[in-house]
Amino acid sequence: MRQSFFFLLICLAVTMTAQGFFSPSVNSPDIAKDGTVTFKVKAPGADTVRLIIDSRLDTLMKRQGNETWSITLRDLEPDLYMYYYVIDGMKVLDNDNAHTLRDVKSVMNTFVLDPNGDCPMAVHDVPHGEIRAVWYDSPTLGAKRRMMIYLPPNYEQSRQRYPVFYLLHGSGGDETVWLEQGRTAQILDNLIASGAAEPMIVVMPNGNVDEQAVSDLSALGNVQPTFAHKNWMDGTFEQSFNDIMTWVDNNYRTRAAKRYRAIGGLSMGGYHSLYISANQPEDFAYVGLFSPAISRMDQGKCKIYDDFEAKLVAQFKQRPKLYWLGIGKDDFLYKDNAEFRKLLDKNRLRYTYHESGAGHEWANWRDYLVIFVQQLFK
Amino acid sequence: MRQSFFFLLICLAVTMTAQGFFSPSVNSPDIAKDGTVTFKVKAPGADTVRLIIDSRLDTLMKRQGNETWSITLRDLEPDLYMYYYVIDGMKVLDNDNAHTLRDVKSVMNTFVLDPNGDCPMAVHDVPHGEIRAVWYDSPTLGAKRRMMIYLPPNYEQSRQRYPVFYLLHGSGGDETVWLEQGRTAQILDNLIASGAAEPMIVVMPNGNVDEQAVSDLSALGNVQPTFAHKNWMDGTFEQSFNDIMTWVDNNYRTRAAKRYRAIGGLSMGGYHSLYISANQPEDFAYVGLFSPAISRMDQGKCKIYDDFEAKLVAQFKQRPKLYWLGIGKDDFLYKDNAEFRKLLDKNRLRYTYHESGAGHEWANWRDYLVIFVQQLFK
Repeated sequence: MRQSFFFLLICLAVTMTAQGFFSPSVNSPDIAKDGTVTFKVKAPGADTVRLIIDSRLDTLMKRQGNETWSITLRDLEPDLYMYYYVIDGMKVLDNDNAHTLRDVKSVMNTFVLDPNGDCPMAVHDVPHGEIRAVWYDSPTLGAKRRMMIYLPPNYEQSRQRYPVFYLLHGSGGDETVWLEQGRTAQILDNLIASGAAEPMIVVMPNGNVDEQAVSDLSALGNVQPTFAHKNWMDGTFEQSFNDIMTWVDNNYRTRAAKRYRAIGGLSMGGYHSLYISANQPEDFAYVGLFSPAISRMDQGKCKIYDDFEAKLVAQFKQRPKLYWLGIGKDDFLYKDNAEFRKLLDKNRLRYTYHESGAGHEWANWRDYLVIFVQQLFK
Repeated sequence: MRQSFFFLLICLAVTMTAQGFFSPSVNSPDIAKDGTVTFKVKAPGADTVRLIIDSRLDTLMKRQGNETWSITLRDLEPDLYMYYYVIDGMKVLDNDNAHTLRDVKSVMNTFVLDPNGDCPMAVHDVPHGEIRAVWYDSPTLGAKRRMMIYLPPNYEQSRQRYPVFYLLHGSGGDETVWLEQGRTAQILDNLIASGAAEPMIVVMPNGNVDEQAVSDLSALGNVQPTFAHKNWMDGTFEQSFNDIMTWVDNNYRTRAAKRYRAIGGLSMGGYHSLYISANQPEDFAYVGLFSPAISRMDQGKCKIYDDFEAKLVAQFKQRPKLYWLGIGKDDFLYKDNAEFRKLLDKNRLRYTYHESGAGHEWANWRDYLVIFVQQLFK
């Protein structure tokens, strides 16, 4: 009897090997306890093998024996990493690592480095919030649209009402990206568990008004993700934002008042947050602009963008509890943001400024989220 | 003013190209309106390029010009497909297609073929259900564990109670796999919209008792998905199943009675469904065994498996409304399932048998799900 059990296992293994489930493993990435990471890939006939880690590193790997190429990296910061190989000019994933993430149209391998067990992007053994993929009605856009909701641990069991943080993605993103590359659920779980952040609902809508949902859930068929969305920064999304807030307040136990509401976003989402909060100063006590795509070219395009300076002044008269701006020194939007700071300074508007290293990238946006959410609703 | 807008777009494009977001596109897979699919890949120096489509096809591609390899396939069935290339022996994904799925440890590209607009696995413009990732308490296993819940369209807004279908994965799967490869949400959305299936809650737990959640949400760090789980078919999961049912009935508007409860699963999940339903005959009016891993080697391992034949007879005395068994002609478990049918026949137990083509694979399990859910709760 026991034999047939092993037979079943063997059959499974044979079937699955035939389907490419098992390839000979080289154990990559090999993450040592001290945080040293060794990447290995088999590429017997290759001339050059490169390792690309997000926008952080592009380096040649070394041949080791006949078949394997390898490189060991030390002193990487605790964080989430995305990487791939380029073998003789062709992008190849690490077949030893089944964990991947997509950035716009590029699929990469991923791992989380957490040598000290305290990286807020890592999964820790703490109470976990719930994640919901919901469809809401947007009468303004005439569409049912998808968004992601993070509910804090114990939401289902409690009768409490919670503050709400609206968290917006950038150009090329969608409703899933803050949970995936952004690690929003892990960051919130960890910071709520340690008491560093208040329990809150996080709402992650889709800011591309020409799509109902992430590209692989499009009813149009095999649509690929893209930067090139219609009406991406022309006021349409901002004008439809109340549909989202109404739906959230109707369907969740929210504290539906300004002091319990935050809005923030990265790049295009920072731009959206800037204009939504300036046009609805009575709605948001907290505003977070993460490398915002400020370009001040939108006057006349939509009334949302008109009289911006006057709107800003009026917004600050109503005393937001926090107006937070973060950007990296190497960001291609640095200059536009410096101009924006001048505008704020000229009008003596009080904001918090955080200047980091690096550029327009997720390593910064995850950090900004960690910093920002700790200051909310206190 | 308009200029700086274009400048921003160009900067974005330059940054993203440097990060590998855009590679020169060959438009692959190119899906024509009649369902013809053309795969193309650039591999200038290659000697051989193969296309592998799940377990359905393994074929050489043809060189087209200097750089590109191509193949066109006709008469593919409407369904979800998973594929990858093998270029001179190395597995490579289609960089033109950002949509991927993971099968155990193997990441592949994916697309849905729906030439007539009626494939139940495709996203159609119908009301969509809600998907929740929740953490439940399992006192039996002494752990908080993750599971996925599908709620039918309008669940949040209605006050109705709903029947529940517990849907279990196979060895190497986890709580996410029925939603991803299984297309459960799309299948339910479409069949509920057409009236072919009753609105129902679908509960997809994790049947690997040695993990709390899918491998990339493990608190143990960088764990890879695997077939090799501890206690995979030794009765532990079956004995903890009431923790799941209790949590679901406490947290959702269920109709908590036998005639409104179904259980089903594929392979290991079929085995789990077999024994859970035989041991709890008062709980399930509907049982679905999809290519179940029946091996009848478990007597003595756990009391769950003892006196199986007597339990089966007792279960059928309580008249399940449907006892459904499906398997493919080429499945390596075909013989074991034929033996099981003999056992059912010998005892004159009435079941529905569905024999399909092909083997132990997702193309069958999606079909079985489509067939099975249409017969539930009527």
